[in-house]
Amino acid sequence: MPGTKTKEAIGQIAELIQDIDICMFTTTAEDGALTSRPMSNNRKVEWDGDSWFFAPTEGRLVSQLKADPTATTTYRAEKGWTFVALAGQGSIEDDPELKKRYWLDELEQWFPNGPEDPGVSLVKFEATAARWWTEKGDGEVELA
Amino acid sequence: MPGTKTKEAIGQIAELIQDIDICMFTTTAEDGALTSRPMSNNRKVEWDGDSWFFAPTEGRLVSQLKADPTATTTYRAEKGWTFVALAGQGSIEDDPELKKRYWLDELEQWFPNGPEDPGVSLVKFEATAARWWTEKGDGEVELA
Repeated sequence: MPGTKTKEAIGQIAELIQDIDICMFTTTAEDGALTSRPMSNNRKVEWDGDSWFFAPTEGRLVSQLKADPTATTTYRAEKGWTFVALAGQGSIEDDPELKKRYWLDELEQWFPNGPEDPGVSLVKFEATAARWWTEKGDGEVELA
Repeated sequence: MPGTKTKEAIGQIAELIQDIDICMFTTTAEDGALTSRPMSNNRKVEWDGDSWFFAPTEGRLVSQLKADPTATTTYRAEKGWTFVALAGQGSIEDDPELKKRYWLDELEQWFPNGPEDPGVSLVKFEATAARWWTEKGDGEVELA
């Protein structure tokens, strides 16, 4: 069970990233290089420490996470001085019910066959630490 | 010597990141977690594959790069759909002439004793690969 301070931080971070939507999702490539790509944060979901993304099953994000789950997602607000960095672990969730739960119609522009298509994978990112920088101050918290 | 295509890509990336200034600089912590922080890209310098940053000598960025130079810097434009990810290696440059060359007066708000202060380190980030995503299209290039 997270303590009060951690719960407070999760609420604060949820508010910050809900308005940002797009993050840079960084993983480690086979040759050890750090690889990043912009990903939509699925803004309709209240963040509780886990984030959910859809990615091509045959793409680099999925294969890199299978080889090394260490990852980070970083956010910059479109306006003002707001940055958030979440460090944690990414994994592939094969449960078809979860794929349906997190699916959004707008994803059909990239994946026209919907959540049941084996060509699209659901990626779960579990944050174990968070840092943020805002005009109101900076902070960091361990989440796991 | 970089080929014509690489030179063209470097010019294009220089233009994209010159307008962004702040990046997220990601390194690996002692426990293996990926750690990020916003850093100013020193926008007065024309990017040629190397970026220069100033950071506290006793801080985490410097100690993490000394232990593991693998790093990435990622950029998001304040307006529109522009993202850049540079993958490469970070190192600490001790040369006092280089510290003076890349110093900017505005850095004195963080480091009031100027570039000669041993408490401030010059960090060189050498990109070996770049990816970008813009409204005009996406691309990637190997730089080394």
